[in-house]
Amino acid sequence: MILVMKQNATEENIKKIIETVHSCGLKTHLSTGESLTIIGVIGDKKKLLEKNPGLFPGVERIIQVSESYKLANKKFKAEPSVYDIDGVKIGGDNFCMIAGPCAIESKEQILEAAQCVKKAGANILRGGAYKPRTSPYSFQGLEEKGLEYMKEAGEKTGLKIVSEVTSIEALNTAKDYVDILQIGARNMQNFELLKAAGKADIPVILKRGLCATIDEWLNAAEYIMSEGNERVILCERGIRTFETSTRNTLDISAVPVLKSKTHLPVIIDPSHASGVREYIAPLSRAAVAAGSDGLIIEVHPHPECALSDGAQSLNPTDFENLCAELKPFISLMGRK
Amino acid sequence: MILVMKQNATEENIKKIIETVHSCGLKTHLSTGESLTIIGVIGDKKKLLEKNPGLFPGVERIIQVSESYKLANKKFKAEPSVYDIDGVKIGGDNFCMIAGPCAIESKEQILEAAQCVKKAGANILRGGAYKPRTSPYSFQGLEEKGLEYMKEAGEKTGLKIVSEVTSIEALNTAKDYVDILQIGARNMQNFELLKAAGKADIPVILKRGLCATIDEWLNAAEYIMSEGNERVILCERGIRTFETSTRNTLDISAVPVLKSKTHLPVIIDPSHASGVREYIAPLSRAAVAAGSDGLIIEVHPHPECALSDGAQSLNPTDFENLCAELKPFISLMGRK
Amino acid sequence: MILVMKQNATEENIKKIIETVHSCGLKTHLSTGESLTIIGVIGDKKKLLEKNPGLFPGVERIIQVSESYKLANKKFKAEPSVYDIDGVKIGGDNFCMIAGPCAIESKEQILEAAQCVKKAGANILRGGAYKPRTSPYSFQGLEEKGLEYMKEAGEKTGLKIVSEVTSIEALNTAKDYVDILQIGARNMQNFELLKAAGKADIPVILKRGLCATIDEWLNAAEYIMSEGNERVILCERGIRTFETSTRNTLDISAVPVLKSKTHLPVIIDPSHASGVREYIAPLSRAAVAAGSDGLIIEVHPHPECALSDGAQSLNPTDFENLCAELKPFISLMGRK
Amino acid sequence: MILVMKQNATEENIKKIIETVHSCGLKTHLSTGESLTIIGVIGDKKKLLEKNPGLFPGVERIIQVSESYKLANKKFKAEPSVYDIDGVKIGGDNFCMIAGPCAIESKEQILEAAQCVKKAGANILRGGAYKPRTSPYSFQGLEEKGLEYMKEAGEKTGLKIVSEVTSIEALNTAKDYVDILQIGARNMQNFELLKAAGKADIPVILKRGLCATIDEWLNAAEYIMSEGNERVILCERGIRTFETSTRNTLDISAVPVLKSKTHLPVIIDPSHASGVREYIAPLSRAAVAAGSDGLIIEVHPHPECALSDGAQSLNPTDFENLCAELKPFISLMGRK
Repeated sequence: MILVMKQNATEENIKKIIETVHSCGLKTHLSTGESLTIIGVIGDKKKLLEKNPGLFPGVERIIQVSESYKLANKKFKAEPSVYDIDGVKIGGDNFCMIAGPCAIESKEQILEAAQCVKKAGANILRGGAYKPRTSPYSFQGLEEKGLEYMKEAGEKTGLKIVSEVTSIEALNTAKDYVDILQIGARNMQNFELLKAAGKADIPVILKRGLCATIDEWLNAAEYIMSEGNERVILCERGIRTFETSTRNTLDISAVPVLKSKTHLPVIIDPSHASGVREYIAPLSRAAVAAGSDGLIIEVHPHPECALSDGAQSLNPTDFENLCAELKPFISLMGRK
Repeated sequence: MILVMKQNATEENIKKIIETVHSCGLKTHLSTGESLTIIGVIGDKKKLLEKNPGLFPGVERIIQVSESYKLANKKFKAEPSVYDIDGVKIGGDNFCMIAGPCAIESKEQILEAAQCVKKAGANILRGGAYKPRTSPYSFQGLEEKGLEYMKEAGEKTGLKIVSEVTSIEALNTAKDYVDILQIGARNMQNFELLKAAGKADIPVILKRGLCATIDEWLNAAEYIMSEGNERVILCERGIRTFETSTRNTLDISAVPVLKSKTHLPVIIDPSHASGVREYIAPLSRAAVAAGSDGLIIEVHPHPECALSDGAQSLNPTDFENLCAELKPFISLMGRK
Repeated sequence: MILVMKQNATEENIKKIIETVHSCGLKTHLSTGESLTIIGVIGDKKKLLEKNPGLFPGVERIIQVSESYKLANKKFKAEPSVYDIDGVKIGGDNFCMIAGPCAIESKEQILEAAQCVKKAGANILRGGAYKPRTSPYSFQGLEEKGLEYMKEAGEKTGLKIVSEVTSIEALNTAKDYVDILQIGARNMQNFELLKAAGKADIPVILKRGLCATIDEWLNAAEYIMSEGNERVILCERGIRTFETSTRNTLDISAVPVLKSKTHLPVIIDPSHASGVREYIAPLSRAAVAAGSDGLIIEVHPHPECALSDGAQSLNPTDFENLCAELKPFISLMGRK
Repeated sequence: MILVMKQNATEENIKKIIETVHSCGLKTHLSTGESLTIIGVIGDKKKLLEKNPGLFPGVERIIQVSESYKLANKKFKAEPSVYDIDGVKIGGDNFCMIAGPCAIESKEQILEAAQCVKKAGANILRGGAYKPRTSPYSFQGLEEKGLEYMKEAGEKTGLKIVSEVTSIEALNTAKDYVDILQIGARNMQNFELLKAAGKADIPVILKRGLCATIDEWLNAAEYIMSEGNERVILCERGIRTFETSTRNTLDISAVPVLKSKTHLPVIIDPSHASGVREYIAPLSRAAVAAGSDGLIIEVHPHPECALSDGAQSLNPTDFENLCAELKPFISLMGRK
């Protein structure tokens, strides 16, 4: 941590803050320039931060130089994390393909979806039972009934299944049905939900918040991990910008940035990122080429009948073509 | 709703979609231009939307022309809402001043804070018992113990009290202690929490999400209202932009925009919006002048000892000066 | 300047970069922590920056701690700048009111506009002769002819006049007609134009770029000032965000932020910031209350006939009412 | 164009606006719903827009349904544009690789750079002679001298050359030296410069503004094209967001969006988009896979000595490796 002093800070101010730092058991290094004095602070800052050094007279600002997340930090675990979910591997040199409808609508729909994504090459089925919708008047999901249908579809096809949870109650229900939990963008900083996910013994896909920085996202992962559950998968799904020709702006750079900062697997959701069916194939290729560990794609047996997000759902044929098209890119990246 | 057809849409395409619209009991008006055909759709669109008209062959896009929120909409209730909380009024020609520390730290601290904000002219005390913090390693709040201290401080000073809840569990605990619940920016789209707040019989301050549009915010209010609790207060607290000299960017235009769209009271939080103590007074004056119904300001008896957000907390003297400075502006705006 | 070393930086790396810093005539202070080494660098960094210290082996990143603008910096001139334009003062305890149509359309229109804004209380007339328009097919302005009309309108009414220039050629023409030049948002980083404005002996209103940070804006002002022309007026006109209910988002915090960083006068353009006529009065009051040194407002004698931006233009009566409404706020702020 | 009427619009209001539309030679279609009246307007809107229909009593808002750019619009030219610059082709199934230093620093530096990027496989050399720099105190470029050096380097290596121009004067000088002009992000809406480029008979790389929407960008291209020069190449170089771990946020979706809207070639600049050397290879692969027509990459013979942007420059070996790595991806995309 670095303390930058105000230009008009007095000797007294400097002496006082240095004493305070020392009283917390930390060391300081003083650098005095012509127009600027800075104080480097060395050691564990916890105690010092409680004293609010930024508010001491003469202090202009504090610059943090190390990250606040630990368990998610690549500096503390250099090897990429790999999770084995009953034989389906995520991370490392594996590439996972998650597909299915935005919402589970009926037993038939989810089973049909499962069969077609399985046939095209997906190894994990997605489907929403608890739907976070902007308006209270939109379809909100089949809840536990939906999870039942999905579990059955998973068992019949051999696909692993993932579904979003939007509350602690939903989480407690869902973990008995699904293989992977998903926490959506809107709940990325629902810290109570993150803590509850941290106590569950099940992998968690954590989507990036609509305007979350990568550091906040890694801190959200840290919430889950610090409770004991270290199997977190990060999913980039687009951030909000001023551009309106896509629903969100896919931050493709998040893949290499995360690869340099964390050991956790990173997947991409091109469906929510773009909101436009025609853009999903090019963005999926880009995701593979950028080094992502997988994709999560909306596929609906009959997109024109979908109860939500139909405009961004692929139909089974499109998805089959996409999987075929991606194969050589996945191989080029050394993934399987 | 308006359906814009693709340039190459066929007669067949147009016929098909019009039939579909009619089959949902709606009327259409067809406008055929040289390079563009548009279809106006009149009536209740619920059924039609379930058929996903945007995915029909030949349809380029759908334009929504009316808002999806109803109870919060000024079109359906022109008069501004006013809430009377045991004599403290919010909305209409009242101006409310909410102040207190970011976090409740001890019985003494919250009582001292209450006494000094009361003396300066505040009528409501704020203080956090459940703190949503970016890092799991930061101070997380005193929880129910904090609420107890706060209730006592409220009773001793005659101030109403407001505190943030971050989960349904916290909400159920808090509603027995506080006069107003607060739902924070990070939970603005925690829809399960919104629904729970909608079932409670207590006013709710709903903060705007860090990157929420005003329409999403009003839809979030609608979640609460549609469950039966119509006493929602909207709080603008800054949105996220690329500018770094303030913590967030206070969207002052939100005040007149909301005043034109909704009857709900609107307050401003200049402390979180700016994150810098020196900017709070000018932003508070601007908030009053823009027509806001109140302010919520962080005041700590000893900011340099605050466990969180000290850098943006006013000390009691600063707050007293601010209240005095704001008075003539509040009068000019015809508020009391 | 602070150099943060990589966690795995070797002794050799550290030695090498320190030697380089010393070879540029600078001093260093080394702080070695358990997991982090930082090097404070003291002195004039120009030479060092040319060696690209950020690319030396072992260096993780560079943190700049002082601003790159000098002449605009309040640290080097604490007193607010005041300009006297033939008796019309801008800055200090003066409040200036600039008003007029978006574009000069005819001799009659600009004269009528001048008379009505004068009557309402404006002291400076605005009007565009060179219009930067998003589409090449929109009205582009009357150019020199327009400036002639405007000069005449200024002479007849005694108003000072300001007009935007979009190229060096336009600047050279305009400076013989107007009292103040304006450089628009789209040209805030048209550095050649800024340099040309720096060589002219005439005050310049410099609008903030649509997505410029305050630091970039002050550096743009520095471009003008470093060429010799120190009479720069900063104009906040809204930044681009994801919010769509206003044309741009007025960054009202820019007023106090600039007041803490620079001695240059700061004015607000609520017309372009909001793009909606109804929001101009509340935003103008907020601008006054936040401490701005003036306003620039679009007023058209017949908004429904305006060739550009009619939707955000006030008519003469609205503007007269606005001026009357603002008066007590201006007095409260100690301005005249 | 669609006119949405206010809820409380009178019969009189509706009659008046319809008459006005008809008086401009346009047709209308009226749709009257229970709570909303909309009027479709058919024909050429130029005349109508001059009457500002959005300001007529009773009109709530105007919705534009067709794009304002014509020559750049794929609807008017479905085939992708291909330019042949003395044998180097851009667009169609060609993939171009543009590389070189941020700034031309000396005859030796640019020649060395040219030789190494040629050897690695680039076919066009980049290098800045006129540098737009945020601070007036940063290195501003060698200007015409730099262009001379560059031309010589191009002739010796057989590479085509491209350089940025920042003013009409620079443009007039540069067009005698270079094969392709570049207009940078900060000048994307310097309309006078665009018009001048439109009069030159030379291809132009037009970079996207830091916060320009894709529609504004296409309108900027239209400025160039409408003056007669139709050889425009669009270059995505990152937009500004709140994320700070990269210099800008590469909007990879811009590639498929542009491919659906325009026939102009699209290239990507991963160097400026990320600002971090380690991220250039993954972003380059992503750009190829998303369907871009080329890349423009900063390569400096000795990045640690670069006078600007060294932190994002590749050294010759890195660039050679990158070219080799990209080859199979380029083949997979059917490009040569």
